[in-house]
Amino acid sequence: MTTPVSFKTLIDALKVLPGIGPRAAQRIAFDLVQHKRDSAIGLARAIEGALEKLRSCERCNTLSETPICSLCSSKRRDPALLCVVETPADQITLEQSGAFSGLYFVLMGRISPLDGVGPAQIHLEKLVNRATDGTVKEVILATNFTNEGEVTAHVITELLQPQGVKVSRLARGIPIGSELEYVDAATVAQAVRERR
Amino acid sequence: MTTPVSFKTLIDALKVLPGIGPRAAQRIAFDLVQHKRDSAIGLARAIEGALEKLRSCERCNTLSETPICSLCSSKRRDPALLCVVETPADQITLEQSGAFSGLYFVLMGRISPLDGVGPAQIHLEKLVNRATDGTVKEVILATNFTNEGEVTAHVITELLQPQGVKVSRLARGIPIGSELEYVDAATVAQAVRERR
Repeated sequence: MTTPVSFKTLIDALKVLPGIGPRAAQRIAFDLVQHKRDSAIGLARAIEGALEKLRSCERCNTLSETPICSLCSSKRRDPALLCVVETPADQITLEQSGAFSGLYFVLMGRISPLDGVGPAQIHLEKLVNRATDGTVKEVILATNFTNEGEVTAHVITELLQPQGVKVSRLARGIPIGSELEYVDAATVAQAVRERR
Repeated sequence: MTTPVSFKTLIDALKVLPGIGPRAAQRIAFDLVQHKRDSAIGLARAIEGALEKLRSCERCNTLSETPICSLCSSKRRDPALLCVVETPADQITLEQSGAFSGLYFVLMGRISPLDGVGPAQIHLEKLVNRATDGTVKEVILATNFTNEGEVTAHVITELLQPQGVKVSRLARGIPIGSELEYVDAATVAQAVRERR
């Protein structure tokens, strides 16, 4: 089989997806074309629909089909609490925890000089304006506990604390359900220092 | 974030792909919408293009943009050798080996009574007509070495041998580059029995 052009194009397009290598792309392409034509049409339509409808929420930057997302427009959330996350995926994770009842600010990234991402790319000016608008009483930093996430949290703290905004950070420690023996030393050390 | 409808639709559409679970689907969806809008459009177009253009080759059943695929219409292939494979993917694997110069017949499946796939679903009548057309001198069975592939090979053999068609099967044995210690017992036993 000299692979037909349209089939090769499909494989190449699938290889762009994160976590999909050449073999998986070929397998998916065959599956779509041979057995799942309806699903394939559905996927193409879903991609087009998402690209057309999704924009950034004007308040928190998260993905939204409306100018202000449903969470930002909810009356049931506490506007005095503002949680800063890196991505909409992190926001979903926090929402699933059910532990947070305030509003969010989604950076849509993290400070990473090597990737050319500085304070301007992650909307920090907008965040400062929002945090100092008089409504927000506490900013909770929920950036990742990676080097880049920690740097981002540090920069935000440096920007907000001089303005008198209360800034907190998610607790670090031993994950629930884990056995001490298998927890890395840095996490254990942190848990000892921050014991309560 | 109450997930926007168009985003949820995209995640659900991605979950249909083989090997893509809920978390991978979410990650891919965010990646497409946030960072890879051009690739996302390309993927939607590639799916539509493939569905529109690809059909079955009238001679060998493989995916083709033309009524007869380029391999079946090639003058450089030996029409006396007919290799029977289960899927176009198997055909690609054989072509990549560079060891076969004849033509193919792609079953587009395998006999699997539990899945309701019998001889009629894998074009066996068409195969018999083709194999007995006077041009084909040898039919090489390259169905998989699974139970279903072996049953399929057996059924085809039973159909063709009474008609005087020479039928052969790919050799079974120890894979090149493998260490005996790690090869399963059934394969080693086969390799001993079929030593040469």
